[in-house]
Amino acid sequence: MIMEHVRHSFAHLLAAAVRRLYPKVQFGIGPVIENGFYYDFANVTLVEQDLSRIEKEMRSIASQRLPFAKKLWLKNRAKAYFKKQKQPFKLELIKDLKERKVGMVSTGDLFLDLCRGGHVKNTSELPLDAFKLTRVAGAYWKGDEKRPQLTRIYGVAFSTKDEMEAHLAMLEEAKRRDHRKLGKELKLFTLIDEVGPGLPLFYPKGAIVRRLIEGFVEEQQQKRGYLPIWIPHITKGQLYKISGHLDKYGAMFPAMRLKGEADYYLKPMNCPHFMMLYKAEPHSWRELPLRWTATTTNYRYEKSGELSGITRLRALTQDDCHVFCRSDQIEQEVNLMLDMTSEAYRVFGFKDFWVRISTRDPKRKNKYIGSQGAWKTSEAILTRLIEKRGWKHDIGVGEAAFYGPKLDFIFKDVLSREWQLSTIQLDMNLPQRFDLAYIDEQGKKKQPVLIHRAILGSVERFLGILIEHYAGAFPLWLAPEQVWILPISEKFNDFAQSISSQLKGIRTIVRTENESLGKKIREGELQKIPYLLVVGEKEQQNKTISVRRRGQREVKEMKLEMFLNMATEEVRLRSF
Amino acid sequence: MIMEHVRHSFAHLLAAAVRRLYPKVQFGIGPVIENGFYYDFANVTLVEQDLSRIEKEMRSIASQRLPFAKKLWLKNRAKAYFKKQKQPFKLELIKDLKERKVGMVSTGDLFLDLCRGGHVKNTSELPLDAFKLTRVAGAYWKGDEKRPQLTRIYGVAFSTKDEMEAHLAMLEEAKRRDHRKLGKELKLFTLIDEVGPGLPLFYPKGAIVRRLIEGFVEEQQQKRGYLPIWIPHITKGQLYKISGHLDKYGAMFPAMRLKGEADYYLKPMNCPHFMMLYKAEPHSWRELPLRWTATTTNYRYEKSGELSGITRLRALTQDDCHVFCRSDQIEQEVNLMLDMTSEAYRVFGFKDFWVRISTRDPKRKNKYIGSQGAWKTSEAILTRLIEKRGWKHDIGVGEAAFYGPKLDFIFKDVLSREWQLSTIQLDMNLPQRFDLAYIDEQGKKKQPVLIHRAILGSVERFLGILIEHYAGAFPLWLAPEQVWILPISEKFNDFAQSISSQLKGIRTIVRTENESLGKKIREGELQKIPYLLVVGEKEQQNKTISVRRRGQREVKEMKLEMFLNMATEEVRLRSF
Repeated sequence: MIMEHVRHSFAHLLAAAVRRLYPKVQFGIGPVIENGFYYDFANVTLVEQDLSRIEKEMRSIASQRLPFAKKLWLKNRAKAYFKKQKQPFKLELIKDLKERKVGMVSTGDLFLDLCRGGHVKNTSELPLDAFKLTRVAGAYWKGDEKRPQLTRIYGVAFSTKDEMEAHLAMLEEAKRRDHRKLGKELKLFTLIDEVGPGLPLFYPKGAIVRRLIEGFVEEQQQKRGYLPIWIPHITKGQLYKISGHLDKYGAMFPAMRLKGEADYYLKPMNCPHFMMLYKAEPHSWRELPLRWTATTTNYRYEKSGELSGITRLRALTQDDCHVFCRSDQIEQEVNLMLDMTSEAYRVFGFKDFWVRISTRDPKRKNKYIGSQGAWKTSEAILTRLIEKRGWKHDIGVGEAAFYGPKLDFIFKDVLSREWQLSTIQLDMNLPQRFDLAYIDEQGKKKQPVLIHRAILGSVERFLGILIEHYAGAFPLWLAPEQVWILPISEKFNDFAQSISSQLKGIRTIVRTENESLGKKIREGELQKIPYLLVVGEKEQQNKTISVRRRGQREVKEMKLEMFLNMATEEVRLRSF
Repeated sequence: MIMEHVRHSFAHLLAAAVRRLYPKVQFGIGPVIENGFYYDFANVTLVEQDLSRIEKEMRSIASQRLPFAKKLWLKNRAKAYFKKQKQPFKLELIKDLKERKVGMVSTGDLFLDLCRGGHVKNTSELPLDAFKLTRVAGAYWKGDEKRPQLTRIYGVAFSTKDEMEAHLAMLEEAKRRDHRKLGKELKLFTLIDEVGPGLPLFYPKGAIVRRLIEGFVEEQQQKRGYLPIWIPHITKGQLYKISGHLDKYGAMFPAMRLKGEADYYLKPMNCPHFMMLYKAEPHSWRELPLRWTATTTNYRYEKSGELSGITRLRALTQDDCHVFCRSDQIEQEVNLMLDMTSEAYRVFGFKDFWVRISTRDPKRKNKYIGSQGAWKTSEAILTRLIEKRGWKHDIGVGEAAFYGPKLDFIFKDVLSREWQLSTIQLDMNLPQRFDLAYIDEQGKKKQPVLIHRAILGSVERFLGILIEHYAGAFPLWLAPEQVWILPISEKFNDFAQSISSQLKGIRTIVRTENESLGKKIREGELQKIPYLLVVGEKEQQNKTISVRRRGQREVKEMKLEMFLNMATEEVRLRSF
């Protein structure tokens, strides 16, 4: 059984059921989507509460064992039919079709729909315990906000009940892990109307996590000989004239227009600044590779409807690197980048990932700049390096940019959702546009190779993904508040403070509020604090603390020093 | 002898001398300035090479023992005189004067000038060994770039030759220390046409020093319970409507205008973002003080003529802090800020500074917001805290902003030039404008006190000042390249590399270029590298290194471990 046919059949069933319940309903479209289907309706008011009634009606129709059958009708006949049925949206669809004949699919004698086909043979084949209507939403006709808004009903359908339940549980889990929800609950960040959409402000806890992530990446880079640079966030438009972005790049914020001066722009990417800094001094072959990096914010004007939490923003901070090297250094440099990617993924606990190797389209070689030889060599290097590491990969033939081949890393989170993260790109265009050079061993001017690289991509988006991957329970080294100390009563506040001051290097909060211990523990659990330390009479006498690890019921009494050593080691190892 | 009279007399002497040498010269103005004087000339071509000839002429005139005398002439008489003399600029000056009579000052029978007066009695009183013409520059008439450009000759004059020589030596030293010159020589930063004026890009060496400075401040803040936040660099204009900046603040970059959306602006300051983040959550008295900080860039549209190196920029990064506290916490919070200021100045070697305490103008009390009591208390706290520390200070009566009293720290560098650095400001305005609140112990809504604070002011400007103060010779902990290892020949490159890899935690460069040791040492001195380690036959055999400390001729042979311990300790102590 082809699941697409099952899902498509359910869409027809949904439409038939809605018409039986609401005879005046008008139909939009009803396609198959990932894991399910939807159908758009007009001239009817539908809310979540109606879904079970509609579902019941669908089951009742399905139990009639109705056959699906497709016929081809001349356009005029179909038009006449839908005119009589008072279905203006179907009429518009027919008008848009170029064919002379159109498909008409019948569900028994009950329902006839304009459709290209792709159904099961009979409603009796449909797995009635493996489908579910999930939600009601508004949707503009043809996605155009100037056209009427229809009511869309979504459903899921699988081949077995178990599969469906696993999927619904996953959705439930995704909701629980939603970084927008957790960002608010854990006071990590907020979005504020007066500041604007896509421009988050980070509370101290969020700012601390950001810094830890950025600090980790910077430490890894420093270890590998990458040097920081600093570039301003604005520039004259002239820079983007040279780079070509001013004409081609769509997501630039509009210019700041100054009287009697050039127009200024927010930078949407960093490459042109890096190029200018390279160009500001002469370079010799001895200096190469130059590994330059900046953790710096870019600004992209995304439509407000496309923004989401901190994973899709208008201000995004990149861990950007540009390496300028000789062509004989490409392999060594890409390999160094792979080392770091591998180390970063290990530390963040990203076990499941694969690599897309984007190469030229061999049929359209004139689309690309750079020599045949350079392409062949660099594509071979990228492929060989990935194969050597035994990483899962896919060759994306024809997916390279016109200026060079690239590697993209796609990470699967605990819910098996895919996120594109790191990228390594060879670039034969910018060194040419900016006329970059170095002097080789023979004293001749040569053009360096440019490699772009980001491990996290955007720090904010990466943090959003981390929040969802960890469900907000950051590993100790990343937790903004690592330890809460809970005195069992006011009498032990001083003891709690003295414990806190002895926990050097650990981010500690003493909760002295006049509330019950039970309440504080529950709050600590909700805030996903890695360690709750309870101190009272017994602990004060024994000079110990009672340690409660996040997610464990068991409480262990131990000497403070032992706990400190344990926690310090856990941070040092960045245990996960 | 009043130095102002001496300097003014020299200006007349200069004009008289120039006329004797260039009879057709036209005169602009010739005022006294700090340490000297200038005179503006037209209808003549003058270059640096002419100065000694003019100086000689001035001496020759002075030796004639000519008296200075002032008379009052009716305007018409003066006009007639300057008309005859063909002096259009003097005529314009007379036209601008409101008095019926104008001052005319004669230098013997030799020279008659329009002048308010203030001279010595006779040219014989002038200290001819304590003046000097220093430079020639262009200057627009009345400072208006649409008016003619005149030629300005600058001179200095002191009461003794020694004083003058000390001053000229200081200027020479200031030139040597100029951060723009050193910034280029030491490859710290650059300004690039295509990016724009006031928007520097930092090379790795400059970026490393920035980070070290920022990191030091952040470490000091963290130790004192300040928590980082993160705010975007742009915002809807609405935020500045609430804060009042949109109407009043002159240095905003123009709006980015989006179709069908609000206007967006670069932030020229951080306060409004901090206020909104505070306001985004309810606060209890228990949480206060909240010490929030962000190292973040602001954008101010300064005229390009007012920009200078990295001390006056269009993008400046502030080490900004805002403390929200109860009124009974002001003293403790300001004191904590003074602790940190004191520690920072000690570490950076700023020994000579004073504090300006800006208070209300007691005659214009209605100019200020907030209660009389609040002003009185907070002014007393600020004064008491500064007095307690025994720091030099000045009460700036009437210099407080309308919203609260403040402290400004003025630092004198090695050349006795004053730089305003840190600032601590109380603010009773913004909490009101943003309607900030906390719930007090009785459950009532109260308005928190706001304290603004910056220690460095702007990171870039601070770095500029540091470069000049240190003459580019950063103390070890701040030096971007701390150690160069110089093998005496290629044979010892590997040994040099092995030394480098053993110097963990030290920023080390191995100079393996095929150049003479002498050349490398000279380059190391020019680059102001704190330690040059020479390694060759002897060192390899003895398992030692030969250490040359910056500024010292002596070379010490020592075990690597000893050097590493010494250098590590020097970094740890931030020895200066």
